[in-house]
Amino acid sequence: MAGLRKMRILWPLVFLLGPVEADPVEVHIVCHTHDDVGWLKTVDEYYSGQNNSIQHAYVHMILDTVVQSLAMNRNRTFTYVEQAFFVRWWRQQDAATRALVKTLVKEGRLEFTNGGWCMHDEAAPHYIDMIDQTTLGHKFLMDEFGVAPRTGWQLDPFGHSATQAALLSAEVGFQGLFFGRIDYQDLQLRQQDRAAEFIWRASPSLGPAAQVFSGLTGSYHGNYGPPDGFQFDVNNLDETIQDDPNLEDYNVKSRVDGFVAAALAQANMTRGKNIMMTMGSDFQYEDALTWFYNLDRLIQHVNEDGRIKVFYSTPSRYVEAKQKETMVKWPLKEDDFFPYADGPHKFWTGYFTSRPTLKRYIRDTSAFFQVAKQITALAESGTQGLEHLAEALGVAQHHDAVSGTAKQHVTFDYAKRLARGRSLAYPEVSKALKTHMGKASVQDFTLCELRNVSLCALTQAVGRSTNRTCFALWNGLARPREELIELPVSSKNLEVVQAETNEAVPIQLVRSLPSVTNYGSDAGGAKDTLLAEVKLPPLGFSGFCLQQVEGKTAPESQLMKDAELIENENLAIHFAGGMMSKITDKVNNMSIRAEQNWFWYNASVGNAESSQVSGAYIFRPNRSQANPVFTGLPFMQVFHGELADEVVTSVGSWVHQRLRLAKKASHVEITYTVGQECPGLRFADPPGEIPADDGLGKEIVSRFSTDLQTAGTCFSDSNGREMLQRKRDFRPSWDFNQTEEVAGNYYPIATSLFIRSQQSQLTVLTDTSQAGTGCVRDGEIEMMVHRRLFKDDGRGVGEPLNETQFVTSYVEDPKGQHYGPGLVTRGQHWLHLGRPSNTAKSWRPLMDRLYMAPVPFFTAGEVAFRKSWTNWLPKNLEVISLASWGPKTLLLRIAHQFGVGEDPELSKPAKLNFEFLFPGHSITSIEERGLGGTISKDEVEHRRIQWPLEDEAAPGAPLGRMRSARSTVGVVTFGPLQIRTFLLQFGEAVFI
Amino acid sequence: MAGLRKMRILWPLVFLLGPVEADPVEVHIVCHTHDDVGWLKTVDEYYSGQNNSIQHAYVHMILDTVVQSLAMNRNRTFTYVEQAFFVRWWRQQDAATRALVKTLVKEGRLEFTNGGWCMHDEAAPHYIDMIDQTTLGHKFLMDEFGVAPRTGWQLDPFGHSATQAALLSAEVGFQGLFFGRIDYQDLQLRQQDRAAEFIWRASPSLGPAAQVFSGLTGSYHGNYGPPDGFQFDVNNLDETIQDDPNLEDYNVKSRVDGFVAAALAQANMTRGKNIMMTMGSDFQYEDALTWFYNLDRLIQHVNEDGRIKVFYSTPSRYVEAKQKETMVKWPLKEDDFFPYADGPHKFWTGYFTSRPTLKRYIRDTSAFFQVAKQITALAESGTQGLEHLAEALGVAQHHDAVSGTAKQHVTFDYAKRLARGRSLAYPEVSKALKTHMGKASVQDFTLCELRNVSLCALTQAVGRSTNRTCFALWNGLARPREELIELPVSSKNLEVVQAETNEAVPIQLVRSLPSVTNYGSDAGGAKDTLLAEVKLPPLGFSGFCLQQVEGKTAPESQLMKDAELIENENLAIHFAGGMMSKITDKVNNMSIRAEQNWFWYNASVGNAESSQVSGAYIFRPNRSQANPVFTGLPFMQVFHGELADEVVTSVGSWVHQRLRLAKKASHVEITYTVGQECPGLRFADPPGEIPADDGLGKEIVSRFSTDLQTAGTCFSDSNGREMLQRKRDFRPSWDFNQTEEVAGNYYPIATSLFIRSQQSQLTVLTDTSQAGTGCVRDGEIEMMVHRRLFKDDGRGVGEPLNETQFVTSYVEDPKGQHYGPGLVTRGQHWLHLGRPSNTAKSWRPLMDRLYMAPVPFFTAGEVAFRKSWTNWLPKNLEVISLASWGPKTLLLRIAHQFGVGEDPELSKPAKLNFEFLFPGHSITSIEERGLGGTISKDEVEHRRIQWPLEDEAAPGAPLGRMRSARSTVGVVTFGPLQIRTFLLQFGEAVFI
Repeated sequence: MAGLRKMRILWPLVFLLGPVEADPVEVHIVCHTHDDVGWLKTVDEYYSGQNNSIQHAYVHMILDTVVQSLAMNRNRTFTYVEQAFFVRWWRQQDAATRALVKTLVKEGRLEFTNGGWCMHDEAAPHYIDMIDQTTLGHKFLMDEFGVAPRTGWQLDPFGHSATQAALLSAEVGFQGLFFGRIDYQDLQLRQQDRAAEFIWRASPSLGPAAQVFSGLTGSYHGNYGPPDGFQFDVNNLDETIQDDPNLEDYNVKSRVDGFVAAALAQANMTRGKNIMMTMGSDFQYEDALTWFYNLDRLIQHVNEDGRIKVFYSTPSRYVEAKQKETMVKWPLKEDDFFPYADGPHKFWTGYFTSRPTLKRYIRDTSAFFQVAKQITALAESGTQGLEHLAEALGVAQHHDAVSGTAKQHVTFDYAKRLARGRSLAYPEVSKALKTHMGKASVQDFTLCELRNVSLCALTQAVGRSTNRTCFALWNGLARPREELIELPVSSKNLEVVQAETNEAVPIQLVRSLPSVTNYGSDAGGAKDTLLAEVKLPPLGFSGFCLQQVEGKTAPESQLMKDAELIENENLAIHFAGGMMSKITDKVNNMSIRAEQNWFWYNASVGNAESSQVSGAYIFRPNRSQANPVFTGLPFMQVFHGELADEVVTSVGSWVHQRLRLAKKASHVEITYTVGQECPGLRFADPPGEIPADDGLGKEIVSRFSTDLQTAGTCFSDSNGREMLQRKRDFRPSWDFNQTEEVAGNYYPIATSLFIRSQQSQLTVLTDTSQAGTGCVRDGEIEMMVHRRLFKDDGRGVGEPLNETQFVTSYVEDPKGQHYGPGLVTRGQHWLHLGRPSNTAKSWRPLMDRLYMAPVPFFTAGEVAFRKSWTNWLPKNLEVISLASWGPKTLLLRIAHQFGVGEDPELSKPAKLNFEFLFPGHSITSIEERGLGGTISKDEVEHRRIQWPLEDEAAPGAPLGRMRSARSTVGVVTFGPLQIRTFLLQFGEAVFI
Repeated sequence: MAGLRKMRILWPLVFLLGPVEADPVEVHIVCHTHDDVGWLKTVDEYYSGQNNSIQHAYVHMILDTVVQSLAMNRNRTFTYVEQAFFVRWWRQQDAATRALVKTLVKEGRLEFTNGGWCMHDEAAPHYIDMIDQTTLGHKFLMDEFGVAPRTGWQLDPFGHSATQAALLSAEVGFQGLFFGRIDYQDLQLRQQDRAAEFIWRASPSLGPAAQVFSGLTGSYHGNYGPPDGFQFDVNNLDETIQDDPNLEDYNVKSRVDGFVAAALAQANMTRGKNIMMTMGSDFQYEDALTWFYNLDRLIQHVNEDGRIKVFYSTPSRYVEAKQKETMVKWPLKEDDFFPYADGPHKFWTGYFTSRPTLKRYIRDTSAFFQVAKQITALAESGTQGLEHLAEALGVAQHHDAVSGTAKQHVTFDYAKRLARGRSLAYPEVSKALKTHMGKASVQDFTLCELRNVSLCALTQAVGRSTNRTCFALWNGLARPREELIELPVSSKNLEVVQAETNEAVPIQLVRSLPSVTNYGSDAGGAKDTLLAEVKLPPLGFSGFCLQQVEGKTAPESQLMKDAELIENENLAIHFAGGMMSKITDKVNNMSIRAEQNWFWYNASVGNAESSQVSGAYIFRPNRSQANPVFTGLPFMQVFHGELADEVVTSVGSWVHQRLRLAKKASHVEITYTVGQECPGLRFADPPGEIPADDGLGKEIVSRFSTDLQTAGTCFSDSNGREMLQRKRDFRPSWDFNQTEEVAGNYYPIATSLFIRSQQSQLTVLTDTSQAGTGCVRDGEIEMMVHRRLFKDDGRGVGEPLNETQFVTSYVEDPKGQHYGPGLVTRGQHWLHLGRPSNTAKSWRPLMDRLYMAPVPFFTAGEVAFRKSWTNWLPKNLEVISLASWGPKTLLLRIAHQFGVGEDPELSKPAKLNFEFLFPGHSITSIEERGLGGTISKDEVEHRRIQWPLEDEAAPGAPLGRMRSARSTVGVVTFGPLQIRTFLLQFGEAVFI
């Protein structure tokens, strides 16, 4: 919170300490292109220049002409970002072009910044996906060019996360982080206060060690283009440099004057004599020559003029130059840049929820990808066959993909890529699993992808066409766990037994969740679902079989008449009027009021205050009060069972939910279905959906109203890592002027949100990213789970976010015509109640469990009993990456999963002894790497720069950090929320 | 007239004689860009990419990226046209780039086609301007690259002239001529009849020797672009070739299928297996890589497919391939392609007159340029200082310049270039003239540019501030002449004497023509003009002095009361109701009714038949009847004088004219002023102008109604050369369906139009290009001299043709805001009456006199008596170019000025003996060249191809032609309308 408030007072001092006025401004020309990995067109349409009527963009040509332009003139430089595109291009190049490009990279003329597969969104992605997609790109760059990017480059994302600044910057070896979009109020103050560049220390847990030099782009005007009037792309309308005195319109003087004025204006918004101009924008440099030809001349004439210096540069050269300006003292920034607003009433908080089913599909695929990497790596089949999945997930993290802000046909393309990536991965995973099974089975394994809509051919066949279906249940977490696994079934004469031992496990028959498509014929989903209580070893699997037993019926849930309470040894959940009303924490002996209700905000279509409408990006309700989804009494059914109690509630005609309290659980699971009538409780004809016939855009929230005294404060996660404090109508860095009391208090929830009083903390965990808040009203949490809108909000996508179950092919109609009922979404909220002082020990591990659900691999054959590859880690550590990195080499990321101060014990540093990690396996060497995996931890440390801060007497010294772990006997220590990355070499292929 | 009619009958035979069906079609890919030398933007705006909001175009980048693309891949070829742009670019290139380009040209990878300074218009330019601008470009190409283009390339002009086909094709060494736009009916028939390529024998005088292989471009669809769907320019919307099977949207099969279909369809519209695809369009290839990248792949995949062959080619390679298809027999075309219509009611006959003052300024500058070249060449100062003028005139011949179809600000730019070119030429001409004067004078010479509006400071000073002003009067024709020269004067006590001899010449004071701007204060024009009768030697000058004589008054014209007749020894002109009514030819003893009247057509704003409006390109009156400019009785004053009689008539408030019959003259000169009231006869307040307040577009014609029995036939010149027969509602090549009985019978008149009966021929000569007709009604000639329109006709220029006296700067408003009264235009019609059988001997020389008026160079000093550089030529020959071509080298073009059959004697071949041409000068060698001056006549002959014709038993053999003249004693013969070009080497600088 030392942000701008203090700085503004200190400014006169800073000014004196600043650069000598006589020093001419030095302008770093950074030529770049911002290439969306899908948005209005699909990634491949962008690459190969198709569908230019939608948007002019042809990335192949960008890379062709940029490379040619660089080859023509040694002075020129270029900076490229998105590896999804670069790799496409690289794979098409011949040896000569590759050699040329390698030379350009080696000589620093072509620089990669960021270097991930895409420029990921910073609101919706899970941190593991951010790391994975960055690693994917970085590994390519190291393999082909031997380089690791030195700067971050997040020009376009709609807000910037603490995790980006801490993990994905300093920890991957970035010396600077650049981005374009921040709140308009913040931007204006930074322009006034010479604070357009600053030191961002984003993680309280990681502290100064993970801070990064950060700068705004776009001449510090909220974008990432050149100064006004200096857009020299092929379709520019700006005046080109005409320096031939024999022709008309000779304009050297006016163009030089304009450029000098722009540079001085920009220099006046930051500190020191060096400034960076981002010369490029969306899909520019398709005809790179136009840019370079004009820049060559501009540079020549400005330097001849002599008032300022200007030269081609790159982000890394720029940071190097800033580093050398040792007299400059920098302001400090400690919070994040959410939410983003580009004007009054224009909060980009809608996209936190937009396209919830795509968000969920990405999250689910992310977890599967972790498991697939583990299974294949441990079988030494490596990542073979997972490339498509890795790349599909890399594409999906793009800031118009998981963000939900792409056009419909592009969204379908994202989903198709994920589906294809998964289906191409299955055979490899199956093959590896068979290896792991040893003698048990040689049958293939398959996934039941539609298990969440109660569809699984293999389990539904048991009792019908087969007697038995076995499955290996993989636990991707490095700790043992007990879970309830759900199996759609067609028979009641069933049991689930442990493989090989044939020991039956506890089961319970419950009512299935219906298919989410309620249009047309029945989807064939199972009416009944069998819950089975299973125990799983850490990082490994247990084998089970679902089998028919004659004459024996599985225990069934019992419908309880007039029940208004369910409970287990830890919790009691009270109901009133069909909905949850109170939660009792038996362990801590406390109760809170906790009334759940479903509401919808009426999307604004613009009003007198502002014409801004609610759309794919922007959330703007037409008033602060939400409307109840159902004004009548919800229809509730309470079921009691041996493994879990369930309360099924129909909230009107288009929302229903199942609340489950499992035996032993310390949390409650709500599985909501929005946009569908409760099966068997038809309220409307045609089938229930989010109503569209009233023409009102609807943004649907689940609200938990409690009696907690929260003083306008709540906490939300940053991409699943650090929990950040949020306050109503407040920004830590400046005197915030609120214009939207609901939308302006919404935050991105990747995994968790909590509110707390002195006594109690209520935490909501999510199975996907969504918008949420606990700040609008005291004691109240709102989770926005779906949006059905009928207006475009003017931020470029050009389609209203009216997702439906059916959409015409974009080949027929590039704009996509929606039809059929509104899209149904299904998701989970896990609720946890505890004492603020020690509740993290519960919800932090729940976060991991929710992300990394056990994955059942079904087979027509037999499965082995159990296999595990690791001993237990300390309770606060978790394996977050385990993947092949080459022959007999594993990439291993281990993370401390507790933030500083969250738990008296578990937030303490944790020690890991590699000797106990993979018992029985011969690790021949261990090398610690940076988070991206391609450079050593030493190199990461070497890259850290000590930036003088204006608020500190002594420059902010990095925290003392452990030396890198290189020996096999090393014991390494993890600070709170620290992630450490290791390459482990093994003597033999011993994992099998 | 052997055209399509016969061919369609013969087709089955042709088909049998055609290529073997099994031969695969061979597609010549000709990559090209069509770069307008000014249109919506100025030539320099196009070159340096300014004002892209008006039109996206940046020629510098085209040439940069094309050269790079060619350098990258040896297979690629490119064809470039407009040297105005290429030279701009070339002058900016360094040695390395020039060397590269020379290699590309040498290897045939970069080919120049047409190669003139621009792609000239074919309706408005004078043939000397066509030759000059072609020579300007060709000389550059020969000097820098040693090449002379082998093909003509007139893709965009709005109709195609016989002169283009005959003189500017075969005679400059072109083996083929390609163009895009022909009448839509003609086009459709040619598509059906496989006549999209043909042999064009355009000049009856030059005959088969000047025929040329001609082909339509644009896949024979009336344009010059690629087949539909294969537009790969940077801003294309067509599907790019996506041949990477690893990416989405792989489309090789569909793209290949589409291309093969397009090629086969095109092949079906012409003969033989080779076809040419013009791959490019307006200002395309700014990012040449986009085109070439896709074409590379398209070519590869189509050839792999194998159904057809496709390869990069050039126009010259294409003609070579066609030449080799010796089995093919070609249809013959003998008429021209005027007027052009791109649909019913859409006749592009308006532009023949659009922007009459620009047209006139170009014509006047053209004549001055000839004189300037003669004067400087004969002084051995060469063309030094004339380059700007040459280039300005080259630019002005562009098909959106002299055509009057450019935007207003571009039109200003053309005029500015001409003005600057002239003013830069003056010092050089003055210097040369001083050399020619010998001892007579060392004072500078100046031109009185505004003499046509009665402004000349030096002559007006005589009697006021000075006693005497001398002038050298240059005769650019190679025959002696007598003329009346007009000198604006302020005094009446004046005489004109021959220099040195001081012998007075006959003079007469007449009323001046007023300034053409009637807005604001008086322009200072002289009230009186002195006519002086002068005798001039061939190709040389006479010196004269205008001087004050005390007590002696110059004879003045006398106003005759009630006179209705003026006459001289040759003619009597009768008047009735204020206008000419009858002409008597005393020599031939005949009279014709000849009623002159001024009318205006009301421009169509579209009607039920067609939405087409009249605009800069299109002439479409809203009905066939024209409206009289004045319904009252015109006010007429008849003046009698010793040198000339004049009749001044005010035709209402905005047209007036002066009809002059000079002593000895065999013709009548009408000088009309349109858009201005007659001085002293104000009819309206505010000052008279073409009325705009009624909102009606007006197209103003001077009509001559006679009693000649013309049977729907008239004759119009082709760029001042061949006279072509025109018939009402008729086209020689096909069964024409007329949709506009006025506009569809209009033709471009560059210099002359006549109608004739058995007995009489009435010829109208013009001092500028304009639209005219003698075909709409029998015995009636209409000359359209001005147009004031308020609608844009939808052909691209995007501005109504509402020329006014003032226009805002385009810097303030790129669209140009007109204000002030409508633009005034002034021009001349010379009328000649004679017997058809022998009248050419009069009007043909008048044509030369009107084009090449004597040019007075005024000086404050003395002038020499006289000087002449040549003996008289035979009466039917004329020097049309005399210019420096290097040290002691002159380029000389001599032309036979009579068409075949026009005169019993003068149409006969003429002999020229070089010995008598420059008496007293030592010609050391004579080499005959092609019309462009850069290649030998032998080479031109060598390039001629014998094309088999379907209508001829034996292939059309070229006429026997004289061997090239190479010796100093040669006598060369000229056939009718033949132009021969010689390089003369002299032993010394003897001309002085």
